Amino acid sequence: MRILGIDPGLRNLGWGVIESRGTRLSHVANGVCTSDGDDLGERLLSLHNQVTEIIEAFAPDQAAIEQTFVNKDGAGTLKLGQARGVALLTLAKAGLPVGEYAPNRVKKTVVGVGHAEKEQVMHMVKLQLPGCLPKNADAADALAIAICHAYYRGTQQRQLKEKRA
Amino acid sequence: MRILGIDPGLRNLGWGVIESRGTRLSHVANGVCTSDGDDLGERLLSLHNQVTEIIEAFAPDQAAIEQTFVNKDGAGTLKLGQARGVALLTLAKAGLPVGEYAPNRVKKTVVGVGHAEKEQVMHMVKLQLPGCLPKNADAADALAIAICHAYYRGTQQRQLKEKRA
Repeated sequence: MRILGIDPGLRNLGWGVIESRGTRLSHVANGVCTSDGDDLGERLLSLHNQVTEIIEAFAPDQAAIEQTFVNKDGAGTLKLGQARGVALLTLAKAGLPVGEYAPNRVKKTVVGVGHAEKEQVMHMVKLQLPGCLPKNADAADALAIAICHAYYRGTQQRQLKEKRA
Repeated sequence: MRILGIDPGLRNLGWGVIESRGTRLSHVANGVCTSDGDDLGERLLSLHNQVTEIIEAFAPDQAAIEQTFVNKDGAGTLKLGQARGVALLTLAKAGLPVGEYAPNRVKKTVVGVGHAEKEQVMHMVKLQLPGCLPKNADAADALAIAICHAYYRGTQQRQLKEKRA
């Protein structure tokens, strides 16, 4: 199964695609969608088009996105919310089921602790996806989100099977 | 010129279309797009589809949207941001130029004071758009935003003409 992970952001939106077969994971692709300029509508449209192209190019079966961290900076939360809304819409438009994971859960799954530094996430992503060179920290985060989804999805399926058995 | 005004929201997104000829304004249509349920992606997709249908049905030339009020409620700001991002994307996708106006400016333009109550906005919208019955307070706000855009756009054009003269 192919999973597209997304780390939402207005200026830099990290993305990563992995392949998950049983407990084996492999890297497919990763990168960063960017937008800048004064016209917010055009920036959001550009992000929408870039994510749509990634979905068309790599044909993921499922998607996963980071649950946004609500902080004291209202203007920052609003910007992130607008980018995240467009990412979710784009995934829904493509008919992809989407898992949402809190940043702490992603870090705990990939690194083992909930408050890991960016360098640790980058390091563990490279270890778990042999041959993968994340473009930057946002792309590494997106790959970590995809890994988290592969892990939890596998766990859910095992639990379902055990229930049925 | 036809103007689509939007009062963004995840559960209730108010909309209103007016026609502006010189200083004369008239009502075309208004309503509320709604979304509910647990799947945020599906809700955003539903809002996107509803706004797209409104644009196709009423063919506006321009659009106007309320600048979101960033408050202390981070989770509320995030929800509103996600809905607003999808609304802005939908307008950009349709190629509509978009004006953004702070709530206080909209109220000051339509009611005369920046801290008007919802009932006053409803009352003044009905007065300025004869025969118009806004569906609810969100639709009235959307019509007020469209009226504000018609006013400021007219002022900008007069200023441009004066500069050229």
